[in-house]
Amino acid sequence: MSQRHCLESLHVQVPVIQAPMAGAQDEELACAVALAGGLGSLPCAMLTPAGIAEQVENFRRRVAAPLNLNFFCHTPPPPSLDALSAWRQQLDPYYRELGVSETKPTAGRRPFDEEMCRLVEQLRPEVVSFHFGLPEASLLTRVRASGAMVLGSATSVAEAHALVAGGVHAVIAQGAEAGGHRGTFLAEKADDAELGLFALLPQIVDAVKLPVIAAGGIADARGVAAAQALGASAVQVGSAYLRCRESRIGSAHRRALEQARDDSTRISDVFTGRRARGIVNRFMREMGPNNDLVPPFPLASSVLAPVRAHAEGMGSGDFSPLWAGQAVALPGGSSDANVLTKLLGSGWR
Amino acid sequence: MSQRHCLESLHVQVPVIQAPMAGAQDEELACAVALAGGLGSLPCAMLTPAGIAEQVENFRRRVAAPLNLNFFCHTPPPPSLDALSAWRQQLDPYYRELGVSETKPTAGRRPFDEEMCRLVEQLRPEVVSFHFGLPEASLLTRVRASGAMVLGSATSVAEAHALVAGGVHAVIAQGAEAGGHRGTFLAEKADDAELGLFALLPQIVDAVKLPVIAAGGIADARGVAAAQALGASAVQVGSAYLRCRESRIGSAHRRALEQARDDSTRISDVFTGRRARGIVNRFMREMGPNNDLVPPFPLASSVLAPVRAHAEGMGSGDFSPLWAGQAVALPGGSSDANVLTKLLGSGWR
Repeated sequence: MSQRHCLESLHVQVPVIQAPMAGAQDEELACAVALAGGLGSLPCAMLTPAGIAEQVENFRRRVAAPLNLNFFCHTPPPPSLDALSAWRQQLDPYYRELGVSETKPTAGRRPFDEEMCRLVEQLRPEVVSFHFGLPEASLLTRVRASGAMVLGSATSVAEAHALVAGGVHAVIAQGAEAGGHRGTFLAEKADDAELGLFALLPQIVDAVKLPVIAAGGIADARGVAAAQALGASAVQVGSAYLRCRESRIGSAHRRALEQARDDSTRISDVFTGRRARGIVNRFMREMGPNNDLVPPFPLASSVLAPVRAHAEGMGSGDFSPLWAGQAVALPGGSSDANVLTKLLGSGWR
Repeated sequence: MSQRHCLESLHVQVPVIQAPMAGAQDEELACAVALAGGLGSLPCAMLTPAGIAEQVENFRRRVAAPLNLNFFCHTPPPPSLDALSAWRQQLDPYYRELGVSETKPTAGRRPFDEEMCRLVEQLRPEVVSFHFGLPEASLLTRVRASGAMVLGSATSVAEAHALVAGGVHAVIAQGAEAGGHRGTFLAEKADDAELGLFALLPQIVDAVKLPVIAAGGIADARGVAAAQALGASAVQVGSAYLRCRESRIGSAHRRALEQARDDSTRISDVFTGRRARGIVNRFMREMGPNNDLVPPFPLASSVLAPVRAHAEGMGSGDFSPLWAGQAVALPGGSSDANVLTKLLGSGWR
């Protein structure tokens, strides 16, 4: 008989959380994972409340299973025209090379707020996960009162302690292997210790009394078994799901994922202003991987957006964030999220 | 019954290699590990041939067990007075602050060469491991002909392939969690993908047909079990042994190890000219972690040596390389290398 895991109380059978990947998936992926017995997730940071409600409704109509809604908890920076125009100037050669005319504002990343909290109270997701720390205490209290299991991401033991003190039900230990944005919220940008999961996971397990969910570099049943051996109560998997047909990524991103090698990714701040792991492409190589002039998250994205959109229109991923973790090149087992979930689950002893 | 491991043919009972740690240990540590059934190692890069022979003799007198000799394979840079004096100028404020008079030459790091090869043929260690790639083919052929099992360190799949092509018997997958020098030999210094062991290990296991030894972030039985789950045929452990009473480190280093937290280490090139993971101290903070002016490995060490020696004389580790991996703060289980080896071995299923 397999060992207990921290999602059992929610009647999730397979201790695998599909990582919420903003801008890269919708309920299609979450449904496939849930139908296989795992926990499907919807990333909400780039959606409107109406968009979130619609995806949740679609999910509920198709699956009778728990659902995880994920939100960002960054503090939006004061709009700084200076920082934006300095970055715009840095990117000017690209604007001219591609003949891109002008900036049009794009959807930013919205932090969890009063309106989102009301939405959670109304939609009643079984799980709510936060990235970049936690929302203010009064909002978190309401999320807990809604009955949701609350998860937060830690990239260090200190962050795990902060999440526990803040009131989470379980901690996601995010290793430096993970693709997409680092959840780091206590360390300064330049002072991230970039802890690998092998070292991070057991240290967080030893430090907190709550269940710990392992994330970063897990792409097949072996990774699930290893995470369990290090004390994880469940795992969260991103890149392997990103490669599945149910994800919603552009053709350039999909092609890059298929061609990626073990050493293809780096952590970079040039796409959004916040450190995130993706496949090295022209923009990351030429402007980064990290750049002192990049405006604070999430402002940087909007300056790059017109160039990115133009390049993608021509089939190029040269200016797109090609989020991926260090295990993206592991075959994983299946490009079908339902099958992948079962394969991952088979690693749990 | 426990699963087979790649050291069985040598009659090593516990699939744990004590990481060779140059400047931090001698045969005392290797003996303690060997007496517990693991594989003891002697780091040779900072020793003279006579010093190596003496340590091997001491080991043989005390233990009837296999022994691993470890060598560096860097290409010594042409002596560059310009680079050295530029770095000396950078360090001048420290020389003046501490009232250190002048540079005296210190023992460098010697690469594996003809004389070392003859020594191997004479001493007949059961295992020879190389760091920073492999020696030239004719020397490696002679090492193999001596009967030694040959190991090499890889920090990427490409490096693992290169080691296999070069003729190793097994590959050490060194995750970015590991303390001390990165074995990286194919990537440029600034272009290290810093793969975490969770992602690196299964990708190397899938890529090569030889046994793979896991290194980096393993400090207790859980880590051994996790490495095995990811496909390792044995493990190599450093920091946990460094904390044992049998290691030979200065009091400042020992104190730093005891006080280290999960997020205390960084990869830095300022101590030796080559990237290595250690605990952040004043010198790393003020001059690095990485610095464009640092002379090539191993020249940088000699410029810092007088300052370091002076500071250590006053009980300060401000200018010492405090090598340690990301799992250094895991209690591990014992400060006795013999007991620790047995505890680590208990993780192997």
